[in-house]
Amino acid sequence: MTSQKASARAHTNIALIKYWGKKDQQLILPMNGSLSLTLDHFYTDTTVEFNSAFTEDTFYLNQKKLDAIKVSPFLDLVRQLNPQAGYAHVISKNHVPNAAGLASSASAFAALALAASTAAGLKLSRRDLSRLARRGSGSATRSIYGGFVEWLPGTSDQDSYAVPIDEKVDWDIEMLAIIIDRKQKKVSSREGMQRVVATSPFYPAWVKSTNTDLIAAVKAVKQHNLKLLGQLAESNALRMHALNLSARPPFSYFEPQSLVAMNIIEKLRSQGVCCYYTLDAGPNVKVICSTAESRQIISALSAAFAPEQIIEAFPGPGAKLIEC
Amino acid sequence: MTSQKASARAHTNIALIKYWGKKDQQLILPMNGSLSLTLDHFYTDTTVEFNSAFTEDTFYLNQKKLDAIKVSPFLDLVRQLNPQAGYAHVISKNHVPNAAGLASSASAFAALALAASTAAGLKLSRRDLSRLARRGSGSATRSIYGGFVEWLPGTSDQDSYAVPIDEKVDWDIEMLAIIIDRKQKKVSSREGMQRVVATSPFYPAWVKSTNTDLIAAVKAVKQHNLKLLGQLAESNALRMHALNLSARPPFSYFEPQSLVAMNIIEKLRSQGVCCYYTLDAGPNVKVICSTAESRQIISALSAAFAPEQIIEAFPGPGAKLIEC
Repeated sequence: MTSQKASARAHTNIALIKYWGKKDQQLILPMNGSLSLTLDHFYTDTTVEFNSAFTEDTFYLNQKKLDAIKVSPFLDLVRQLNPQAGYAHVISKNHVPNAAGLASSASAFAALALAASTAAGLKLSRRDLSRLARRGSGSATRSIYGGFVEWLPGTSDQDSYAVPIDEKVDWDIEMLAIIIDRKQKKVSSREGMQRVVATSPFYPAWVKSTNTDLIAAVKAVKQHNLKLLGQLAESNALRMHALNLSARPPFSYFEPQSLVAMNIIEKLRSQGVCCYYTLDAGPNVKVICSTAESRQIISALSAAFAPEQIIEAFPGPGAKLIEC
Repeated sequence: MTSQKASARAHTNIALIKYWGKKDQQLILPMNGSLSLTLDHFYTDTTVEFNSAFTEDTFYLNQKKLDAIKVSPFLDLVRQLNPQAGYAHVISKNHVPNAAGLASSASAFAALALAASTAAGLKLSRRDLSRLARRGSGSATRSIYGGFVEWLPGTSDQDSYAVPIDEKVDWDIEMLAIIIDRKQKKVSSREGMQRVVATSPFYPAWVKSTNTDLIAAVKAVKQHNLKLLGQLAESNALRMHALNLSARPPFSYFEPQSLVAMNIIEKLRSQGVCCYYTLDAGPNVKVICSTAESRQIISALSAAFAPEQIIEAFPGPGAKLIEC
């Protein structure tokens, strides 16, 4: 009997220039490049053990046994890289304040990629880890790295991976996550982006304009220009949500409370506070701001949201091995 | 001293396929054709008197004296048609439940076009009235007619006018207007559509897809197909609002309560009720439905809105002369 075990931690990331649409469903190649910020506050710890005595894959998430089909196709990719690796036991824990959608698949598959490949005896480069994580979930591509990360869309499995843009982030930027409950997503990201690509007349213009936004946003990160980065991020996010409204049938992730949060941020901005929002495939609103002004923003948000709904997060590190 | 006086009534209309963007600011030629339903419930009564003894234009709206600049440029167009006409006194009254944005300029300029041209001794055809009303406000073009109306975009002042599609509307369709207060519009329609045309990368695709929608929607009206008309109207409205989100800087007319209303309508629809919404340049939500199901819809909306916020409206007539 041979057994090998590894544990890894990966943090979630929030896209400032969005990934919304695949050009290859199987390989998860995105239609356009994207830019994200990895956050310290939300992460997944995952332990993978390959053991020749195991007779099937098993998967526990937050101490609950789930159907292994959620991880087996991904583990198969690792087993392709090392055919010696047998079945695996996977134990994951999401460190998130609640189940409101911030426990994205990004941190999950980035942690799984590092833990599984290490347990299988592979020593993948960060680039290859990023490529591997991509096969689990597009946004996981970026969670291999810390700080600001760009996902190069590529044209094949080989050249679609993330690169770090600013891993240290030694300038004043943070993110506030405003947690807005909703029972269940009406439309999953996967289904949403597919419907948009298939039915939105606006989609080709989205790809083109997002490519332009991305170049400008990467430059803004390098210049530590919070205002320009925020403007680009907010506009790009709203264009992504505009795509959803323009699909057939249309759909939206906005909830009434999302608009309440957005209105508060817009009002603060009209008063001179440098803050911008972004939203992903869900109602939560994330605010980009400086730590110098975050108290004021939290205070304004407190008029409409409970303290536990407002979470302060800072730039976080890339995926790494941990002791478990 | 010569004096001539006329009074007219025109009803507002709600676009089901939207006008959003001009190709000529001066002549108010729209980028694409549109389709509307004139409503009985909301209208403007206007009396115009041309009198050679008057030394200036005056304008009263709802018994309040307003700056005559709001009507003088339009009266100048009438005076071009009859250079004998001197200054005018204009007295208008908007018959709307409150000032929440349903008193659109559509009924105002349609009533003014008919009253002023008649008072000036002109006997304009409905087509020429529609062309004249257009110069006051784009949507007024359509309020010359009752029921379902199409605005042919045209390429010049001569060929941009409305035509009736179904004036009698002898089938089961009505509209519920859900009045959602907001202090003031953030962005006027005029400014909004200009910004969209100038900055949205989605705009060319909007024009193209709306032209396609319009053909299908006119056919749906002729077939009395409420479901198809509703689907097209809701999707077209959301695409118009998507344009606003995609402009730079982005803007939106959605308020939290707009989403509450939209969610209720979507939920009813998932339960088999045939109802669809549309929104214009403001937070109010208008619902297209059948009279057979309107009670059920009003009842569902009552969970979130006060009775006076929900107004039932039926297809209304075109502009006509009245005794005042």
